[in-house]
Amino acid sequence: MSQNVLFTEQDHQFMARAIELAKQGRFTTTPNPNVGCVLVKGGQIIGEGFHQLAGQGHAEVNALAMAGSQAKGATAYVTLEPCSHFGRTPPCAEGLKAAGVIKVIAAMVDPNPQVAGKGLAILADAGIEVASGLLEQQAKLLNRGFLKRMEQGMPFITCKMAASLDGKTALKNGQSKWITGSKARQDVQLYRAQSCAILTGADTVLVDDAKLNVRIDELPESLPTELPLRQPVRIIIDSQNRLTPELALFSIESEIIILTTELDKSKQWPHYVSHIVVPKQNNKVDLLAALKLLAQRQFNHIWLEAGATLAGKMTEQGLIDEYIIYFAPKLLGNDAKSLLNFAEQTNMQDVDNLTISECALIGDDIRITAARCLNTAP
Amino acid sequence: MSQNVLFTEQDHQFMARAIELAKQGRFTTTPNPNVGCVLVKGGQIIGEGFHQLAGQGHAEVNALAMAGSQAKGATAYVTLEPCSHFGRTPPCAEGLKAAGVIKVIAAMVDPNPQVAGKGLAILADAGIEVASGLLEQQAKLLNRGFLKRMEQGMPFITCKMAASLDGKTALKNGQSKWITGSKARQDVQLYRAQSCAILTGADTVLVDDAKLNVRIDELPESLPTELPLRQPVRIIIDSQNRLTPELALFSIESEIIILTTELDKSKQWPHYVSHIVVPKQNNKVDLLAALKLLAQRQFNHIWLEAGATLAGKMTEQGLIDEYIIYFAPKLLGNDAKSLLNFAEQTNMQDVDNLTISECALIGDDIRITAARCLNTAP
Repeated sequence: MSQNVLFTEQDHQFMARAIELAKQGRFTTTPNPNVGCVLVKGGQIIGEGFHQLAGQGHAEVNALAMAGSQAKGATAYVTLEPCSHFGRTPPCAEGLKAAGVIKVIAAMVDPNPQVAGKGLAILADAGIEVASGLLEQQAKLLNRGFLKRMEQGMPFITCKMAASLDGKTALKNGQSKWITGSKARQDVQLYRAQSCAILTGADTVLVDDAKLNVRIDELPESLPTELPLRQPVRIIIDSQNRLTPELALFSIESEIIILTTELDKSKQWPHYVSHIVVPKQNNKVDLLAALKLLAQRQFNHIWLEAGATLAGKMTEQGLIDEYIIYFAPKLLGNDAKSLLNFAEQTNMQDVDNLTISECALIGDDIRITAARCLNTAP
Repeated sequence: MSQNVLFTEQDHQFMARAIELAKQGRFTTTPNPNVGCVLVKGGQIIGEGFHQLAGQGHAEVNALAMAGSQAKGATAYVTLEPCSHFGRTPPCAEGLKAAGVIKVIAAMVDPNPQVAGKGLAILADAGIEVASGLLEQQAKLLNRGFLKRMEQGMPFITCKMAASLDGKTALKNGQSKWITGSKARQDVQLYRAQSCAILTGADTVLVDDAKLNVRIDELPESLPTELPLRQPVRIIIDSQNRLTPELALFSIESEIIILTTELDKSKQWPHYVSHIVVPKQNNKVDLLAALKLLAQRQFNHIWLEAGATLAGKMTEQGLIDEYIIYFAPKLLGNDAKSLLNFAEQTNMQDVDNLTISECALIGDDIRITAARCLNTAP
């Protein structure tokens, strides 16, 4: 396997196209990664494909189907190492081999321990020229949720918040509607739709009677997918079993997981509601344990929309990978409510530095994206 | 005077050049406005000038000096209506007339009641074709301090703040060094250098032992001026006469004005320190009265660098025209200190909407500029 190969300008263009294709699956592939594939012969694209839905064809399969017999002698550009194992579909490495592809360039090696280099090895053993690492950073960013789950057994957490310019989320009396404008709220819907799950605390559900679904009619008309959108799973941390089936949350027929410390069998829940009992910490759901359990349930990327207490606790424990904060051009003053509640800091040197990865004007508001580590930036 | 004249593409280009020239004076012309002038004949620029220092030649005088006898028959593009009165220099309208200019296009009419259309009238009366309103918005933004003083008898106030992403300026124990990075602090020096004055409260001076001068060595090397920079006047609100001459502030030999409610004659001040007694409000300096007095002293644009109390009071009274907030990618939590202290708001509908005019990455930090009115945005 040649790792230090010099890629050509054309290689870059075809891989960039494969990444564009991969992105088309970002509303639908969970728990699988987003993958795109381009087949090229004589400098021309003869087949393209991306992974659309778990259980359906992988990107390579779709590209090979489009190329047909032309695939013989072609080069495959694929954003993730072709799989080597029988999952819900046969291994793609075998498929590329059988189709007579003569070269395979992968953007990155599959972090899935079931694959992890085996896919490229199958190809190399069959005399196919293989290389990896082309536009690797971009490919990794596209699947940072899947990557984190595979590498650390934890989901990638993006924490969304909305505040005034002086960092306040609500007036002292609790009024918070609306700090940000309609464009920012629409933008949130687009992020929700791309997430595997939306996570919040019982407080948010009880105080706002929030439904936490994707409001399809608020999404932009030109979505980069033609597939029907799925509703992300709604996950609520409810340590004290305060939720009741009458809440608006439960009026939407779509999967809900309640994380609690003890099962309360006195309530009747709809069939799409399940409970997970999580170990306790200080009589509440242990957040680290909860996230590990969610990773085991194959949640890659979780969108956290919580209040200052839960978001603060998760910040304190270093469980948040990325913050997306919408700042509205308003000032609410010191009596208003702070963004994040966590234990007093006493030394500026001990305060973590985040990295700003983006700053954008969304309607009348500003959206700032800040990541805990540089390499998790979008 | 033809106000609804259709300006040509060439007219726009020459006026844009005049505005660029005007900007070169923005570190030095106070209390005068920034003005640029371009003289054009046969489609060629034959003279350029800008106003550099109060008491020295106006933009038109400098452009006419460069053009010499060629000025006869030329068109003048000037970012502000030529003056009609004898100030420290003779009226420019007369100068343009005498030089034989045949057309004068002004970006805006002079808001100075001593001019206010009289300059253009002198020219029109002499048979010179005149027009105004070309790139008017840009010209107005350049001199929004001068404009506000002329039109409202008040200085334009830009309030600078630095905070963490959750809107906190310091830890609970007071530690605030450094929230933002060196690039942001350098950026502040550039704004200070362009201001007529830096305003703060005695608290900030006492707590930080702040000098509040422009640190010339922290400015970018390629400043858009070759003139020696002046130090902005430092203005301190000290209602209770708590300042003492031993403070670092007074070690820099450059004008300082102390605003107080009563003169304290027990202290010996350096010669560059003066006091203004301002009417009281709740036993403190009446902020509105103070700003009016500063406008009378010809301060156009004041850079406010104050703590949460003074900046909060000024926000509450609607005295701030623009906020420049540097957000560092850090999170300090709810116990840390808030950006602005002011009376509790109880209704979200009553909260003023600002307008975001800019959002920029400055080193590792973000600078957000928000204005109180759209038409004061930079």
